[in-house]
Amino acid sequence: MSGNSFGLLYCVSSFGESHGPAYGGVVDGCPPGLALTDQDIQKELDRRKPGSSRHVTQRRESDTVEILSGVLEGRTTGTAIGFLVRNEDQRPKDYSAIAQKFRPGHADYTYYQKYGVRDPRGGGRASARETVVRVAAGAIAKKYLRERYGVLVRGYLAQLGMHTIEFRDWGEVDRNPFFVPNADQVQDLENFMDALRESGDSCGARVNVVASGVPVGWGEPVYGRLDADIAAAMMGINAVKGVEIGAGFASILQKGSEHGDEMTPQGFLSDNNGGVLGGISTGQDITVSIALKPTSSIRLPRRTIDTQGRAASVETKGRHDPCVGIRATPIAEAMLACVLMDHALRHRAQCADVIPPLKLDNPRKIN
Amino acid sequence: MSGNSFGLLYCVSSFGESHGPAYGGVVDGCPPGLALTDQDIQKELDRRKPGSSRHVTQRRESDTVEILSGVLEGRTTGTAIGFLVRNEDQRPKDYSAIAQKFRPGHADYTYYQKYGVRDPRGGGRASARETVVRVAAGAIAKKYLRERYGVLVRGYLAQLGMHTIEFRDWGEVDRNPFFVPNADQVQDLENFMDALRESGDSCGARVNVVASGVPVGWGEPVYGRLDADIAAAMMGINAVKGVEIGAGFASILQKGSEHGDEMTPQGFLSDNNGGVLGGISTGQDITVSIALKPTSSIRLPRRTIDTQGRAASVETKGRHDPCVGIRATPIAEAMLACVLMDHALRHRAQCADVIPPLKLDNPRKIN
Amino acid sequence: MSGNSFGLLYCVSSFGESHGPAYGGVVDGCPPGLALTDQDIQKELDRRKPGSSRHVTQRRESDTVEILSGVLEGRTTGTAIGFLVRNEDQRPKDYSAIAQKFRPGHADYTYYQKYGVRDPRGGGRASARETVVRVAAGAIAKKYLRERYGVLVRGYLAQLGMHTIEFRDWGEVDRNPFFVPNADQVQDLENFMDALRESGDSCGARVNVVASGVPVGWGEPVYGRLDADIAAAMMGINAVKGVEIGAGFASILQKGSEHGDEMTPQGFLSDNNGGVLGGISTGQDITVSIALKPTSSIRLPRRTIDTQGRAASVETKGRHDPCVGIRATPIAEAMLACVLMDHALRHRAQCADVIPPLKLDNPRKIN
Amino acid sequence: MSGNSFGLLYCVSSFGESHGPAYGGVVDGCPPGLALTDQDIQKELDRRKPGSSRHVTQRRESDTVEILSGVLEGRTTGTAIGFLVRNEDQRPKDYSAIAQKFRPGHADYTYYQKYGVRDPRGGGRASARETVVRVAAGAIAKKYLRERYGVLVRGYLAQLGMHTIEFRDWGEVDRNPFFVPNADQVQDLENFMDALRESGDSCGARVNVVASGVPVGWGEPVYGRLDADIAAAMMGINAVKGVEIGAGFASILQKGSEHGDEMTPQGFLSDNNGGVLGGISTGQDITVSIALKPTSSIRLPRRTIDTQGRAASVETKGRHDPCVGIRATPIAEAMLACVLMDHALRHRAQCADVIPPLKLDNPRKIN
Repeated sequence: MSGNSFGLLYCVSSFGESHGPAYGGVVDGCPPGLALTDQDIQKELDRRKPGSSRHVTQRRESDTVEILSGVLEGRTTGTAIGFLVRNEDQRPKDYSAIAQKFRPGHADYTYYQKYGVRDPRGGGRASARETVVRVAAGAIAKKYLRERYGVLVRGYLAQLGMHTIEFRDWGEVDRNPFFVPNADQVQDLENFMDALRESGDSCGARVNVVASGVPVGWGEPVYGRLDADIAAAMMGINAVKGVEIGAGFASILQKGSEHGDEMTPQGFLSDNNGGVLGGISTGQDITVSIALKPTSSIRLPRRTIDTQGRAASVETKGRHDPCVGIRATPIAEAMLACVLMDHALRHRAQCADVIPPLKLDNPRKIN
Repeated sequence: MSGNSFGLLYCVSSFGESHGPAYGGVVDGCPPGLALTDQDIQKELDRRKPGSSRHVTQRRESDTVEILSGVLEGRTTGTAIGFLVRNEDQRPKDYSAIAQKFRPGHADYTYYQKYGVRDPRGGGRASARETVVRVAAGAIAKKYLRERYGVLVRGYLAQLGMHTIEFRDWGEVDRNPFFVPNADQVQDLENFMDALRESGDSCGARVNVVASGVPVGWGEPVYGRLDADIAAAMMGINAVKGVEIGAGFASILQKGSEHGDEMTPQGFLSDNNGGVLGGISTGQDITVSIALKPTSSIRLPRRTIDTQGRAASVETKGRHDPCVGIRATPIAEAMLACVLMDHALRHRAQCADVIPPLKLDNPRKIN
Repeated sequence: MSGNSFGLLYCVSSFGESHGPAYGGVVDGCPPGLALTDQDIQKELDRRKPGSSRHVTQRRESDTVEILSGVLEGRTTGTAIGFLVRNEDQRPKDYSAIAQKFRPGHADYTYYQKYGVRDPRGGGRASARETVVRVAAGAIAKKYLRERYGVLVRGYLAQLGMHTIEFRDWGEVDRNPFFVPNADQVQDLENFMDALRESGDSCGARVNVVASGVPVGWGEPVYGRLDADIAAAMMGINAVKGVEIGAGFASILQKGSEHGDEMTPQGFLSDNNGGVLGGISTGQDITVSIALKPTSSIRLPRRTIDTQGRAASVETKGRHDPCVGIRATPIAEAMLACVLMDHALRHRAQCADVIPPLKLDNPRKIN
Repeated sequence: MSGNSFGLLYCVSSFGESHGPAYGGVVDGCPPGLALTDQDIQKELDRRKPGSSRHVTQRRESDTVEILSGVLEGRTTGTAIGFLVRNEDQRPKDYSAIAQKFRPGHADYTYYQKYGVRDPRGGGRASARETVVRVAAGAIAKKYLRERYGVLVRGYLAQLGMHTIEFRDWGEVDRNPFFVPNADQVQDLENFMDALRESGDSCGARVNVVASGVPVGWGEPVYGRLDADIAAAMMGINAVKGVEIGAGFASILQKGSEHGDEMTPQGFLSDNNGGVLGGISTGQDITVSIALKPTSSIRLPRRTIDTQGRAASVETKGRHDPCVGIRATPIAEAMLACVLMDHALRHRAQCADVIPPLKLDNPRKIN
């Protein structure tokens, strides 16, 4: 196994390269009986797909998914779900200028050194186009979690460069090209992105993801912790450099008397822990925040080396997202959904017969 | 598997509870031929052990390790290394006052709800005493990495509450009770901790860990990424709420032209990526930073519920670290070492025959 | 994970159903740099494919493989190899007569009870057509093992019903429709099969597989034993009910002085152990023998129940192999190759630096 | 991971050597709430332990188990169960005569070549004493399976050299030193073993294991098949060279009309499939049969080589079982129990919400 699968019981295996014929994957472990059609996956892929606004890459991909197995007459059978997304707009030629050079901050250098092979076509396997597989797998997980447990996994863009976005309304998130929960800030972001694109540079972003309705008890202590698996899933998304759960880095400055979430029979009084204690869900919202670095493929010239190790200058002319964080919201949601799905199954494997002894009125309740 | 093992090829399995008879573990996958004695592990355990200053828990444990297998005549044989650390200073009675209540911010609530079982003796399996196993496993990994690859894994306390520590000298780290790399700040920290302990409250902390000398090419792309596994390992340490690699959350505010680390034939010109690109090591220092929340067991009264779900007040009188972050440095080092060890083996499994095509003069070089 | 992947480091994930649109898989962990084309896989698929003689199922499938990723300019890149084999001759109608009944000895009953779903189209996921994925994955493994280590994996039909086949010549195996290593017996087998087909019944078979040139030291002791993994791989082939390694069941009647393979500096004097001792390869030929039960889909009427649990009679009219063992040779070879590949990688992960202390002149030598 | 763990959800990790200080293990994934004491494990260890009759090794070990974690007030807590069995009767000196030579048929040669290390003390990790860990882990699994599902796992010696044993009564099995279900044959076996021991030679054996009461639906199709995992577990027992399920190798000679088990609303009419179809349990008895080779450590002189590769003669004087098969019954039971336990948990992870559509009156019923 060389890193192309994740999940213990809800297991996703992925293949594909940016300018090869197709991406695809296998979702293994989905319970039988879930109503599932191509459309259930397609609608999530459409949220992630390129070319949906001028602020993201203009590569034209319909990202049409084809389910190849594991579904019979509209319901999952319990066997492996294979699916395929053909690439439609490969332009390997876009990369001829940079085929022999490494982009600063890009994985093409490390792939070359690890495997001894140079796949210059759009980053090959390192391309963020691979996230199409994650979003597909996440779509299935999301649907199961919602229908079986009432769990809702939602995310939004919380910061774009220096622009922090104030959370206002989940309903806004899918009504603008940035996945921001606040219509009033969209125009500012449009202006910012237009100027950024013009400049040839790129910027970083923060995405927040929240899972509501997660029952108490999911997650395994010590090493198989829910928060540890979430951290891996998030840090494993292209360009992510930081992960926080709950109060995150702010907890450094907190006192124990401030951080520890007090409880009443009605529920918790705060959510500094982000819905996870000791690696196990508390029943509160699970709150995750991630930092995405600026895109490494930019038009500005940068010092680098070539495949012969000689000094060189590189500027990337292909079609790229000036901020990979913009399209990251559905990806982060998908990864969180896959982790929760995995732990839903793991929990009931071991603790199928446990009835949680306590029932808080409303665990999520925060005064 | 219920979360008590980690690592694919360098695999650590752990058991033990805070007030049970012993902790222990199995390290599976260590290459044969490594010189190894109890003392190699003991010296790392001694760095972590309680009671070493007035600023940490006063529980008296010698944390003496006994290697039970896998070593013959001072060298590893390639078979499983079993080891044991007996608990010596159990005081289950310390917990009688809180046996029926949950500490805000503590895992005793989630364990109870997940398993339907209440182990009130010092948090049982959730106790940070479990990290004794991680440090032992990390000691073996550290030694192998150093002797076989010249890799050095080191950490330090970078922030204690509002006190940020300026890095000065690795040599200082083990000469003060805080693992800070700066002797001049020790007195301030002593004063701060004395006042904190007096107050009955606790505080958070930041720990930085650095691995130097890691060859280019370790880590697997897509899901088995080196940074993803590091994130899981770190977030899986008790009390950790945030993980950064390289520029971390600061990369949100960076431009691509600033973040992307330029390269010359002599090496990299910066290390915003923290030594990992596309999930694969670059050959630079791997830099990780983690946030630890304040200890949940504090003397101040807090609102909570009891095991019957009734409103209650709790204050914790046992012996506890007022800042779990202080002893976290050797633990974070151990976790990073275990992850690197795992990926060293994984890399050579697949790419044993690859010679990295390029040899930078000094990949770590940063102007 | 619900059983659709196997292998720790050379990991194969599979999907597809007999009468769905396609089979496919992901091979993860293949080392980079291996020369690989569709044709390398196709030639193994052609050995397994249906319709190649009158003695096997007359379903017409070209079993054409398409590699979708992981190969660039004719060489593996080290990333996941995705591949697809479209179904071409689905005839779900063939199954309408048995859609509501269970075939004695067939998995359609257990799938129905496990998943609560009835996929009557040719056994769905239980169909032996799934072995197309195994053969494809095995083709890659075989090629790597041969080119990198000189390992040769070969098999043959050793018994067909009561007809035992005397081994004569590897060269014969691919020159007859039965994979028997003895041209003189082919006519008898043809006659036997013609009569069997006529009768509407089916028969069992034995297949032997041999791996030559395996270096000493592959396999992990205790639970990850090479022989244990081979046993799982073989028993996991459709219709297999028994697995032997080396002397197998005959060793019950052997004395220790007869079974234990004596050694000289020139090599071993016998191979009762089948090339594995303590779960680790000896350097001798690895010899495996498997028993395949008779096909459960037969034309003769049999007592059974229907999906309502009522007594019924069933006879299967579709196109089926009267002896699944006939086409099992390439499948068993593929499974053995995958296991060896996995252990080749696992061995060098842990023991990359070990040089076997002893070099026998010719470990395989058997007087 | 180097082969010292097995099981996906009921995961056993093992350590220890024959003449080191102790064996021990970690059982991870046991559901909480199971009543469990040292004694539950001890009684199974006592069945396996050496020195219980003159027909087995005379090494004197009490094999006393100490549970170190995972149990609180007599019930499992859901956390890792650590346990220890100290070695008491090490006699490394027994091995001085053979320290520099390899026993034909023994793993000491392959260990030496794999790891480059010679542990001459009783086979080190390769010793069958390691099965003490399996029996301990199996004892917990057996208890859970029996109490939660009514599953009974039982085995017996079915053949000793040329002596085949006729099954008569489960009640006899634990009343004689051979685990044979037939009191009338015990005297013959005593005589046979006395003569064998006298001769300095050893013999092979067959052990049958049966699991009754397994619900329909356990096991995962394709690669994670119940029969495949059973085959691995059995072939992974020291000295096992063959595994059969149901009709096993006899199915080669069967016709489909004979092999395929007919069904009626009352149950199955035969059990050729051994309780597994398509890798999934049928609800019938699961019947497994294994072949154990004769002990390789015998008193008779044999040709071999030494650690320098020179021709030598070896005879083994230590205390050894003249037939390892005799003590294999509890070991095989333990392995079967562990596999079933693992699949019980895996099944309910994925299919927790499935109610098997059909309820046969008595699936086990065989006319």
